[in-house]
Parts: sequence; C-alpha cells; structure tokens
Amino acid sequence: MKFLVINGPNLNLLGKRERDVYGSLSYRELEEKVTAHLEREGIECEFFQSNSEGEIVEAIQSAAGKVDGIVINPAAYTHTSIAIRDALLGTGIPAVEVHISNVYAREDFRRKSLIEDVVVGKVCGFGWFSYVLGARGLAQHLSEERK
Amino acid sequence: MKFLVINGPNLNLLGKRERDVYGSLSYRELEEKVTAHLEREGIECEFFQSNSEGEIVEAIQSAAGKVDGIVINPAAYTHTSIAIRDALLGTGIPAVEVHISNVYAREDFRRKSLIEDVVVGKVCGFGWFSYVLGARGLAQHLSEERK
Amino acid sequence: MKFLVINGPNLNLLGKRERDVYGSLSYRELEEKVTAHLEREGIECEFFQSNSEGEIVEAIQSAAGKVDGIVINPAAYTHTSIAIRDALLGTGIPAVEVHISNVYAREDFRRKSLIEDVVVGKVCGFGWFSYVLGARGLAQHLSEERK
Amino acid sequence: MKFLVINGPNLNLLGKRERDVYGSLSYRELEEKVTAHLEREGIECEFFQSNSEGEIVEAIQSAAGKVDGIVINPAAYTHTSIAIRDALLGTGIPAVEVHISNVYAREDFRRKSLIEDVVVGKVCGFGWFSYVLGARGLAQHLSEERK
Amino acid sequence: MKFLVINGPNLNLLGKRERDVYGSLSYRELEEKVTAHLEREGIECEFFQSNSEGEIVEAIQSAAGKVDGIVINPAAYTHTSIAIRDALLGTGIPAVEVHISNVYAREDFRRKSLIEDVVVGKVCGFGWFSYVLGARGLAQHLSEERK
Amino acid sequence: MKFLVINGPNLNLLGKRERDVYGSLSYRELEEKVTAHLEREGIECEFFQSNSEGEIVEAIQSAAGKVDGIVINPAAYTHTSIAIRDALLGTGIPAVEVHISNVYAREDFRRKSLIEDVVVGKVCGFGWFSYVLGARGLAQHLSEERK
Amino acid sequence: MKFLVINGPNLNLLGKRERDVYGSLSYRELEEKVTAHLEREGIECEFFQSNSEGEIVEAIQSAAGKVDGIVINPAAYTHTSIAIRDALLGTGIPAVEVHISNVYAREDFRRKSLIEDVVVGKVCGFGWFSYVLGARGLAQHLSEERK
Amino acid sequence: MKFLVINGPNLNLLGKRERDVYGSLSYRELEEKVTAHLEREGIECEFFQSNSEGEIVEAIQSAAGKVDGIVINPAAYTHTSIAIRDALLGTGIPAVEVHISNVYAREDFRRKSLIEDVVVGKVCGFGWFSYVLGARGLAQHLSEERK
Amino acid sequence: MKFLVINGPNLNLLGKRERDVYGSLSYRELEEKVTAHLEREGIECEFFQSNSEGEIVEAIQSAAGKVDGIVINPAAYTHTSIAIRDALLGTGIPAVEVHISNVYAREDFRRKSLIEDVVVGKVCGFGWFSYVLGARGLAQHLSEERK
Amino acid sequence: MKFLVINGPNLNLLGKRERDVYGSLSYRELEEKVTAHLEREGIECEFFQSNSEGEIVEAIQSAAGKVDGIVINPAAYTHTSIAIRDALLGTGIPAVEVHISNVYAREDFRRKSLIEDVVVGKVCGFGWFSYVLGARGLAQHLSEERK
Amino acid sequence: MKFLVINGPNLNLLGKRERDVYGSLSYRELEEKVTAHLEREGIECEFFQSNSEGEIVEAIQSAAGKVDGIVINPAAYTHTSIAIRDALLGTGIPAVEVHISNVYAREDFRRKSLIEDVVVGKVCGFGWFSYVLGARGLAQHLSEERK
Amino acid sequence: MKFLVINGPNLNLLGKRERDVYGSLSYRELEEKVTAHLEREGIECEFFQSNSEGEIVEAIQSAAGKVDGIVINPAAYTHTSIAIRDALLGTGIPAVEVHISNVYAREDFRRKSLIEDVVVGKVCGFGWFSYVLGARGLAQHLSEERK
Repeated sequence: MKFLVINGPNLNLLGKRERDVYGSLSYRELEEKVTAHLEREGIECEFFQSNSEGEIVEAIQSAAGKVDGIVINPAAYTHTSIAIRDALLGTGIPAVEVHISNVYAREDFRRKSLIEDVVVGKVCGFGWFSYVLGARGLAQHLSEERK
Repeated sequence: MKFLVINGPNLNLLGKRERDVYGSLSYRELEEKVTAHLEREGIECEFFQSNSEGEIVEAIQSAAGKVDGIVINPAAYTHTSIAIRDALLGTGIPAVEVHISNVYAREDFRRKSLIEDVVVGKVCGFGWFSYVLGARGLAQHLSEERK
Repeated sequence: MKFLVINGPNLNLLGKRERDVYGSLSYRELEEKVTAHLEREGIECEFFQSNSEGEIVEAIQSAAGKVDGIVINPAAYTHTSIAIRDALLGTGIPAVEVHISNVYAREDFRRKSLIEDVVVGKVCGFGWFSYVLGARGLAQHLSEERK
Repeated sequence: MKFLVINGPNLNLLGKRERDVYGSLSYRELEEKVTAHLEREGIECEFFQSNSEGEIVEAIQSAAGKVDGIVINPAAYTHTSIAIRDALLGTGIPAVEVHISNVYAREDFRRKSLIEDVVVGKVCGFGWFSYVLGARGLAQHLSEERK
Repeated sequence: MKFLVINGPNLNLLGKRERDVYGSLSYRELEEKVTAHLEREGIECEFFQSNSEGEIVEAIQSAAGKVDGIVINPAAYTHTSIAIRDALLGTGIPAVEVHISNVYAREDFRRKSLIEDVVVGKVCGFGWFSYVLGARGLAQHLSEERK
Repeated sequence: MKFLVINGPNLNLLGKRERDVYGSLSYRELEEKVTAHLEREGIECEFFQSNSEGEIVEAIQSAAGKVDGIVINPAAYTHTSIAIRDALLGTGIPAVEVHISNVYAREDFRRKSLIEDVVVGKVCGFGWFSYVLGARGLAQHLSEERK
Repeated sequence: MKFLVINGPNLNLLGKRERDVYGSLSYRELEEKVTAHLEREGIECEFFQSNSEGEIVEAIQSAAGKVDGIVINPAAYTHTSIAIRDALLGTGIPAVEVHISNVYAREDFRRKSLIEDVVVGKVCGFGWFSYVLGARGLAQHLSEERK
Repeated sequence: MKFLVINGPNLNLLGKRERDVYGSLSYRELEEKVTAHLEREGIECEFFQSNSEGEIVEAIQSAAGKVDGIVINPAAYTHTSIAIRDALLGTGIPAVEVHISNVYAREDFRRKSLIEDVVVGKVCGFGWFSYVLGARGLAQHLSEERK
Repeated sequence: MKFLVINGPNLNLLGKRERDVYGSLSYRELEEKVTAHLEREGIECEFFQSNSEGEIVEAIQSAAGKVDGIVINPAAYTHTSIAIRDALLGTGIPAVEVHISNVYAREDFRRKSLIEDVVVGKVCGFGWFSYVLGARGLAQHLSEERK
Repeated sequence: MKFLVINGPNLNLLGKRERDVYGSLSYRELEEKVTAHLEREGIECEFFQSNSEGEIVEAIQSAAGKVDGIVINPAAYTHTSIAIRDALLGTGIPAVEVHISNVYAREDFRRKSLIEDVVVGKVCGFGWFSYVLGARGLAQHLSEERK
Repeated sequence: MKFLVINGPNLNLLGKRERDVYGSLSYRELEEKVTAHLEREGIECEFFQSNSEGEIVEAIQSAAGKVDGIVINPAAYTHTSIAIRDALLGTGIPAVEVHISNVYAREDFRRKSLIEDVVVGKVCGFGWFSYVLGARGLAQHLSEERK
Repeated sequence: MKFLVINGPNLNLLGKRERDVYGSLSYRELEEKVTAHLEREGIECEFFQSNSEGEIVEAIQSAAGKVDGIVINPAAYTHTSIAIRDALLGTGIPAVEVHISNVYAREDFRRKSLIEDVVVGKVCGFGWFSYVLGARGLAQHLSEERK
C-alpha cells in the first residue's frame, strides 16, 4: 500500500520555534520517523511539503492513479482552502486529515476545517505519531473497503 | 472583440469525476466548444487555467491593455480570494463571473462570492454554455457602453 | 420553443426613475427588444408582469403544460417570496432567474434569492440583455436535456 | 361547531408533483376526506384556498362572527407573513396551525412560523390527517374553554 | 398641498380588538379625524387602505404626478415588503412612514422597517395623531425644499 | 395497535403549579384520561415517566419490538437531548412529539426541538388532548404505511 | 403645558459642519424657531444641552415634578446610554424621542435606540421641525391621557 | 498499560440500525475486536457503556488512580455535556476522544465537541478501528511523556 | 429556617485537582464549614450532591414542603439543564444560585445560566463562602417576604 | 477593614419609582441600613454615588491606597462602561459587583457585565442586602488571602 | 504645526499597574518624552487627559480653529463612544487614533473602534512612541494635503 | 538595523488605478521614497513584492537570521491568510503591519486582520509614509527591547 503524505505551509519550520505547540522534532526527523514506522507495517509513503496552496492542489491532482491514499496535514490551509477540498473531491483519492497539535485547544479559527467532511477520518494531537495513526487508519479503511 | 477566459483551481479536472455536478465534458473539450461558439459571434477568446491564486492575479494584471474583457470562473477562489477581487479592481478590466454548476444549489460556502459586486454581471448553472452567455453578455455590455 | 417571461413588482416603472440602476429603457421597449432578439433565435416568448405575489404564483401555475420554460425576474419578491419558490417547485417547470441590474452591487438584502437554488441557472447585471441570455441558456439546457 | 379551513399558496397543486413531500392526494380529494371525517365527529367545515396573502387576510377578517374557529395551513406564508398573524390577532378568532408535511424535516427556513405563538396549537406531519387532528384539537379546546 | 394616506393590512379592523395597542377609534373615525385636522392646516388628504401588498404597490405607482406626497402606514408590510420600498424609490414621491402604536415597544420583528431609510422621516406612537404629525412634517419638508 | 407514551422530567408535577401553563390535571389524571380516550379508538397505551435522560433513552431502546410506536413528550429534554434523538434514530421506532402547552408561546429556548425532524409529526398546545391527537395521528400514519 | 427639551452631545455644533446631514441652522436658531413655533400652540419649552451623559441623567432627574414632559434628542447617547433610559424609567416623566436627521438612512449603529421602547413615541427626519412635531405629539398624548 | 474505554448513549445499539453510519458490527463484537487488537500491542482495556450522563461522570471519577488513561466516545454527550468535560478536568486522567463515524460529515450539531480541547487528541471516522488508533495514540503519548 | 444545599456534578472532587480554580478544601470540609457557619446564624442545612441531572431534579421535587429554600450550585448543569430550571419552577421552592469560582472569569460557555432568571439571586466567586452568603441572602429574602 | 461602596447612575432615585424592581427603600435608607449592618460585623464603609461615568472612574482611582476594597453597583454602566473596568484593573483594588435586583430576570442587555470577570465575585437579587453580602464576601476573601 | 494630544480614561494611571501591558512610564513622563521628541521635529503639542466622555467631547469642540490636528488615544472610550466620533466629524479637525498597547492582542471588545473610520490613520502597539508616530503621520498627511 | 519590507498582491499596480484610495505614487516610487527616508534615519531596507501567498510565506521564512525585523503590508492576504500568520509565528521575526489606505474606512471585510495580534504594532492610513512610520516604530521597539 502506498500513500502520499502532504504537508502544508510552515511545517518545514518544525522544531525551530513554537516547540510547546509542535514539539522539537525537525521536519526531516518527522519524515524519517513516520517513514520508518509505517514501513514496518507494510505501508510505503512519499512526502511532499509546500507553502503554496496551488502546489498542494497540483500534488493532489498528480497523485491520482499513483497512490492508494493521501495523508494530509494542510496546516494553515486547513481553515482557508476550498481549492484543496475541491482537489480531494475532484480526484476522489481516499484521504485522512492529520494534525500534529490538538487544533481544538488553540485559536478559535483553527477549529474549522474545510476538508474534514470529505475525508475518511481525522486524527489530531499526537505529534508526529498522528501521521502514523492516520496512515494506519486509512490502510485499515481501504482493506475493509476491498472486502 | 477579445476576451481572456480565466479558470480557477481544479477546473482542469473537468470530466473526470463529480460529473453529476460538472458534466462529462473534459477541460479541453470545454475550451474548444466555447471557442468555436464565440468565434461564430465574432468574439475571440484566449483561455488560461491555474490552480494558484497568485498566478490568476498575475494573469489579470498582464491582461491589462491586451484584452477587452475578462470572463472568469474563479472556482474555489470565488469564495476565498480578496486578491483576485483587488486585481480586477486594480486593473479595471471589465469582467463577468461565470460558473458551470448552479453554485446556489450546493454547499452554503459556495453562495458567497468575493468578486460578484465588482464585475459587470454573473452567469451560472448552464454548464459550458455559461461561458458563452457570459462572454456574449460582456460583449453586449461593452458595445452599449461605447455608444 | 416557448417561454413565459415573468416580471415582478415595479418593473412596469422601468425607464421612469433610478435610471442609473435600471437603464432608460421603458418596460414596453424591453419587451419588444427581448422578443425581437429571441425570435431571431427561434424562441417564442410571452410576457407577464404583476405587482402581486399571488398573481405571479398563479401565472406560474397556469403555465404548466403550456410553455417549455420560465424566465423570471421576481424583482423585490426574489428576496421575500417562498410562495413563488413553491410554485416553481410545485409545477416543475424549468426556470431561470434573471435580473437587470447586478443585484450583488446594491443593498445587502438583495443578495439573498429564495429561488436561486431551484432554478436551472441565474443571470444578472446585463440590463435588458439578461433576459436574452437567460432565455438562451434555458433553451440550451433544455435541448441538452432532451438528447 | 363550524370551522373555516384556510389553505395558502400552491396547496391547490397537491397531488401533482413533490408527492414524496405532500402525498398523492389532490386538493379536491383532501377537502372531501377531511370534510367527511370531521362531519362524523359533528364538526362542519368550509374550505378556502388562495395564493394571495391579501385574500387570506381578508378571508380571516370576513370569518369573524361566522365561524367558531380557523384551521389554517398558510403554506409558504407561514414563514413570511406578519399580515396573516395580525389578522388572527386582530379578529381574535381561535385558530390552529396545520401542515401536511413535517416542516421541521425540510429546508431551514420552514422551521420558523410567524403565527405559531398566536394560535391555540400546531399539528404537522400527518398528511391530510393533520387537518382532522387540528380541527379536533380546536374543537376540544373550545369545548373545554366553554365549561 | 395634497397627500395620499396609505394604510396597510388589518388597519381596517381598528377599534375592534387589541385596543390596548391601537386605541378604540374605528378606521372610519381615524380617517375623519385626520382629514378634519389636516384640512384646518390647508392639507388635503385622500385615504387608501388595502390588505394586499400588490395593491399598495399599485396605489403608490398610480399616485405619481397626482399628489405632493405620501403618508404611509404599511402595517405588517413595513417589516416584510421590499416591493413597497421599490415602489417608493421607483416613483420618487416624497413619503413619511407613520405608525399608530410605538412599534419599538412590541415584538422584536416590528423593529425593522424596510422603508425607513428611503422616506423623509418617521413618526410613531401617537395614535391617530401620528398621521397628522407625519403629514405636517412632510408639508414642512416640502415647503422648505421649494425655497 | 400499542404505543408507549413517554413523559420527560417534571411532568410528574402536573397540576401542582404553573397551572396557567399546564392546566390543573394531575399526572395521574392525564394518564387516565388519555388511556380511556384512546382505548375507545382501539389504541392501547402504556405510560412511562422519568426525570432522567438516560432512563428515557433506555425506555426507548427497550420498546423496540414491543410497541408499534412512541408518543413522546420529552419536556425539558426536547431542547437539550441529542441522546434521545439518537435513541429514536437507533431503534427506528416510529414516534410523534407532543407537548401539553404551546411551546412556541413561551421562552425562546423552547422553540428548538432536537427530535422534531426525526419524528413522524408534532402536536402541541392542546393540553392532555395533545397526547390523544398525537396517538391518533401516529395510528393513522402507520395504517396508511401498511397499505 | 411645559416641556423640557434635552439635546445630547455635539448638537451645540449645529450649522457648523455636516450641513448635508443636519442642515444649516445653528443651535441657537433651532432653539428660537422651536420655541416660537410651540409658543403659538400654547406649549412652553425650556432647552438644555449637554455633552455629558451624567449631566443629561441629572437634567432628567431634576425635571421630575417641574415639567409635563420631555422632548429628548440624545444624539450619540441614543445608541449607547442605558443610564438615560434608566433615568426616564426612574422618574416616569412622559417623553418623546426626536432626531433632526433620518437616523435610519445613516450608519448602521444609529438604527438602535436604547430609549425608543420606553418613550411615548418617536419622530425623526424633519430637521428642526422634528422637535415641534414631537412636542405637539406629546401634548396631544397628554391631553388624551387626562380625559 | 491499562485504559478504560468509555462509550456513551446508544452505542449499545451498534449493528442494529443506521448501519450506513456506524457499520454492521454489534457492540459486543466491537469490544472483542478492539480488546484483541490492543492486547497484541500490550495494551489492556476495560469497557464501560452507559446511556446516562451521570454514570459516565462517575465512571471517570472512579477510574482515577486505577487506569493510565481513558479512551472515550461520548456519543450524543460529546455535544451537550459539560459535566463529562469537568470530570476529565477534575480527575486529570489523560484521555482521547474517538468516534466511529466521521462526525464532521453529519448533522451540524455534531461538529461541536465539549471535550475536544481538554483531551490529548481526537480520532474519528475509522469505525471500530478508531478505538484502536486512539488507544495507540494515547499509549505513545504517555510513553513519550514519561521520558 | 431549613435549606437544602444541592451540589451538581464533580463537586465531590473538590480539593483534588484544579485547586487554582476551586481551592484546596475537600467536599466534606466544605460541607462542614458551611454547616457550622450557618448553624451559628440559626440556619439549618442539609447537603445533597449528585452527578446525575435526573437525581438533582428529583431532589428538588422531593424537597417541596420539607425545606424553606434551596441553595443550589448546579456546576456543569448550570449551563445545560432546562430540567433543573423546570423543577425549580414546578415546585416553586425559593432558591439561590451559588458558585465557588467566579464563573465569569472562565470559559465563555460558563457565562450562561439556565436558572439565573428563576432564582431569587445569585452569588459567585467567594469559594465555600458563596454558600454561606447565598443562604444568608435567601434567609433575609424570606424573612422580608413574610413581613 | 474599610470599603468604598460605589453606586452608579439613577440609584439616587431609589424608592421613588419602579418599586416592584428596586423595592421601596430610599437611597438614604439603603446607606443607613447597609452601614449599620456592616458596622456590627466590623466593616467600615463609605458611600459614593454618581450619575457620571467619569466621576466613578475617578472615585475608583482616588480610592487606591485608602480602602481595602470596593463594593460596586455600577447600575446602567455595568453594561456599557469599559472605562470603569479599566479603572478597577488599573488600580488593582479588590472589588465585588452587586445589584439590588436580579439583573438576569430583566431586559436582555442587563445580562452582560463588563466588569464581572475582573472582580472577586458577584452578588445580585437580594435588594439592599446584596451590598451586605458583597461586603462580607469581600472581607472573607481578603482575610483568606492574607493568611 | 500644532496638535492637541487627547488621552482618555485611566491613562493618568500609567506606570502604576498593568506594566506588562502599558509599560513603566508614568503619564507625566510620557507627556515629556513625546513633547520633547516632537519638538525636535517642529511639532508643538498640547496634552489633555480626562476620564469623562463629555469633557473629551468638549476638548475636541474647543480645539476647532486652534490646532492643526488631533492625536487621540480615547482608551476605553475608543470602543464605546459615538459622542467622540460625532465630535470629530462635527468639528472636522483632522485626527489620528493612537494606542500604547497592541489593542488587537487583548480582549475581543478592544478590537472595535468607533472612530477608526473617521480618522486619517491609526497607530498602535509602540508604547509612548505610538504618539510620536501618529503625530508625525498626521503632520506628513497635512503637509501633503496642502500641496 | 535592517528590515525586510514585504508587499502583498496587487501592490505592484500602485499608481495605475484606484488613486483615490491608494494615491498616485507608483510602486517603484514608493520603494524609492521609503528607502531614502529610512536611510536618513539609519535604517536599511530591502523590498519584496509578490502576488502569491506561498511566496510571501517563503520570503518570511528566508528572512530568519538575516534581518532585524519585517515591515509587512499583506494587502488582500491580510484578511485571508493564516499561512502568513503562521510564518511570522514560526520564524519569530519581529514585525509590524502597515497599510497605505485607512482599511477601516473601506469594505467591511478589510477590518479583520489575521496577523494584527501577532505583530508588534500596526500603522495605517498615511499612504507611503505608513511604511516609514512602521519601520521607525519597529526600530524604536527593538532598541528598547535591547536595553
């Protein structure tokens, strides 16, 4: 099973500041830990990070037919991008929404997600492990779907 | 008379999925049908599609002085982009807003347009023919203005 | 193809005042220009204007089985009449909503339409030409439906 | 005991379309079934239907002194007419509000009634039988009042 | 100076019920008292009452060119009719809005008027005398305008 | 036909206070009158009253397969309990919502019901007779369904 | 009959600026014209102007027992002062609210008045003549009360 | 590591109805699958289900000092219970919120959770597997905390 | 004079956690301090604590005729329980609402109380002493009432 | 212990009108009863009343260093004055908010207090005795603070 | 160039408390630093501070014709005073709004300013230096206007 | 001291249209005037303009460690971009928000800024001079911080 892991704006800054919110892992370390962990469970994953809404839309479009699913942390675009929602709807690739921090314990505007009703499920609050849980949840979902 | 036809994010996916909403025409076919149709009415049109808000802003800016008007379907950016609104205001190119589907019969957040009060008019719900109607409406508007 | 063109309250005042909003055409002239224009495209149209919500409801009811579609500019009733919405739903006649002015560039209460999600499409901002565009869009829609 | 049964706009279309919402009974059949049913319980009823808000206001005004109560289904005017509310208040005729469908399971704007707080009670969701229940409730209410 | 005095729905019931709100004067008596009073001040007035929104719209349209101004108490339509607003705007006849009761001391929905920003002024709370004050205010306004 | 009649919190206080709202019948008397009345129409009913949201949820669950329908007056829980809604949805037992008083003529928070869109219909304002009407409406609905 | 005429903040600037809103009369001239006019109708009036909310509260308190009524234009405090409302309620002096301009045709926050539901009536939009109309309305109201 | 798994109202109905929302697993089967799965990962779990808000509060209170964490699916009480929130805050037991369905793709009122900002994280949309993911996420969180 | 002191959910956890909010007194100590204090002022009080909304409703119902008043701290149910409000209204026992913490300096949802308008008065922010003040206030109120 | 008791606008009218809301005690009598009562408990208090927001701000500023605390009933300014809030924050004098009536059982706008989250606690609904309770609560709070 | 610098309520407390918000400068020191700094740039300034809304209104009125502009920090009145807005509009003196703290990073109610749309510009967040920047900005604006 | 000056979408159009809002300076001239002015005060500044949200995010990220602060005019993105906010938070570079026009005197949606609470301060309304003031304010802030 192969997933594309998409990370939105500023996630490349991980580990540099706001460590009380996002932890001390760098973005590179997060990639490595998640990849290693999922590999052991037979899930291959490819990472993509961009600060541009348009590039994320295109990454989703390009993934069609190449991956089994998408694990997406749209970061700031979670709350403002209908274009990413439309890309998920338009390609129909099964996806899960993940967040490093517990978005519900922060600013009010982080409570609203524009994709949460078009994804399979949502995981937040477990740091880098949110990606692992999201990917495993998606894998489980897909294997049950196939039965 | 020459118009720039701008299409926003994910419209390049036309015909692939969500056909009940957007119809089965591919983006390429839509371009061809609209172009052919308008040609017969003496309107030349150039198409531009982008998934990036910034690129659409720049397409509008670049069009200043080169076209008589803009037919724009900003797709998802209709509802979130003040930058596109400001580009239309800043260049002063006459524009019409068009939509393939009837945006009022879908999710609530598609009811709000951030450009609808700065364009000449708005057409939605007629599939690919919305572009034809929008272009003809704009042409008519411009020819009456010139009198 | 035959359409009923319904005009709501005060449209009979066209050309008398508020010309910056509605233009200088009188209601009679609007009828003539639209009729002539559509005739050339093979669309026959009958006009009906009333200042009474109930009469418009009855005009819609009476049209059932007699016309192929309705082009309706409910004017003030656009924003307040559920009865007209229910008449369109109850007869099932395909309809388009048109407006002379760009209703989105005026008072806030003109932004809400109570019929916009039950019509095929919507056209506004092109003066008397909105009716022509709306009728053509409806004709196109019906001919595609029939295929 | 004699009641006036008032029906608002488009109820004369009953049985023609939207049968999943309103059932397949025609308006005439509804009148007959309700009349027959109530007759057996000693309640005489007279039917009035209009698509005009003003005519309904006048029907209420004219009923003063002639009937013991009003069973009213204002249809679309339920949600928009303060004039009908004022007519009920102004004549003081005891009334019940009835609806064929369960208005709470439809569009949001059907949840608000402008008369619900000035009537004796409200019945909805039981098809043509809502009228019977409403009339019986009103009869019971009046007979208890008189004790 | 000649004014048309327009009264909306249910005002013909005056004096019958809800006397704590509207007083015990009948509609006929109100007409006589207001007419007599204004006559003494050199203002001629003609009364019109209707329970129909459409008829009020037409009364306004018909008054164009025949009266110097309109004194209007739209009653329930004050809060729901954009059509009456548009008739006032469309004919451009100077008008004042009057109410018998103090609409601000009643239900919340009576606080909003859809014509209050397009009339010269507003008078409420003085019973039948509101009409006298409104008419005098309008006369004063017009005579100052003419200077 | 057999119905479970469920009464929510504080309805056991009936007849003790707030008689202007709920009447002077005690809860026991209400049970007797409703039972006697419905018996004559061939409807058997069992009463259940509880002040606990959880117990009402369980009463609904236990009724599955034992009764033909539920007549429920959730009292205060009408406005706050999603759990009761979910119990009705989860068991799928046909239900009607009834209220002794006209809930729309009281505090604003009594206007919202969390079950009104998942029941067959709603009856309110007729005192103890609301239960009779609700039960008869439900019986009628079920017998029409069975046809 | 004797009235206290209270004017709120900045009304002493009348005639200096914003003449399109308030006219060209100075505050002194307004006092004179209103006084002269009312004198002819047998109404004596005393003027009070203050820019301080507290002083207006005290003016109202001091007026108790000394005047028959209050004509008040609280200007900016109309929209923000509960203290003035409480002073009117606390002294029980009959009052009318007046405004020079049509407050409903200006900024949105001028639409809300915190005293409008505790005064006898309200007059706005007639320039200096609003005071005359308000005073006459109050006099009429008081003389009818006394009957 | 030992967790208490708390399930709110109506979850005992699992597998009986609304299978498109909750799947076809019975509550008993869900317990077994989750227990078996977590056992393999060295996590012991005890299940508790109640339809009563008060009992859930007490289950949380009783768990203090006996378990390492709580996996809670408060079902309907997610959206209405501040008492459960306060129990979690008052005992300080680390908890995760889980849901079988994607609550964001259902009724609007299911979007608000009253505990989401006081738990470690949230998982929803993965059926019975949501519990497994939640438990694993909590275990990971606790083991990182202990470092 | 004898009062029932009712404490809502989680107050039995007092002194265990969240000491910055609720202080370090245990629930037992609070009972003792309040009882001792009030005894000295001739007020006898009985304590009742429950985590269940239904049990609190029943405690209020059972108190009718046995106590002179109720001092209630509904804790979380303050903000969500209409059932408790209805029990207070339905029994008519004079009550005061008390809170240990200053509920206005915490989460927004703690600002709304569903009983505050049906109790004699409200005291909050004084720790265990809020109960003493509330009880004394109620005693004073009752003794003045009896005069 | 010495407290400043501040009373806002119109409280000097106590006992004159609105006795159903505020009781029949005059402001002078309230001062005397509260003073006498608190004296017996070893609390000295000084009264200050003003109808001016600015003067209340200055009374608070002047009290810094001279009193142990403030008992404040800001009356109308409770709901509109950020300046008083800022004075309490700026001087840091411990304060309690008191009200004679139960502000929650009156107009909606009296429900919001702009100081309630910056005072120690709040007492309302106990007539003149609210001041006594507020002062005693503050004294208790201060003596516990000092331990 | 000469400016009046107006400071609203509680700014005279500067440096006493809440130093994390407002810094440790006393009001006197702020005056001196700002005056000295502006003097060097050829701007003369006069300071005025008041805790009374009315006095600030009068200070603005008195400044007409005597100064070139106003630098105003209305403190709490920023958010509540329409009277100050009207004074600025009524005198037409060019003004800038300044704040010591970043008002957007504090309580929500500090985000709304009632004068921000009638001043030339706004400066906040730079401590005492906000006054200097505001004054310089105003000077620059005036000198450009004069060209 | 060295600052990065970031300009958002459409600011490159400066001087071309909407001159009543933005003045007649071209973007190039603005750069030159600001640079020259700040140079004289010992502040070096580098300009960056982009129409793309993603590029602005990256410009902020790249500036970390290279400049002392950021002067940012995000133009349209002020109101819609959480990504820019997160970039400022994520890099921790001190920043000020500036606007050429007075954003509070324009469309309502321009009143909300998504970065205003995470910057040091805000300056708007002074044309090109807003940049100068913002930069000077930031320089002053940084030099005080360093003390």
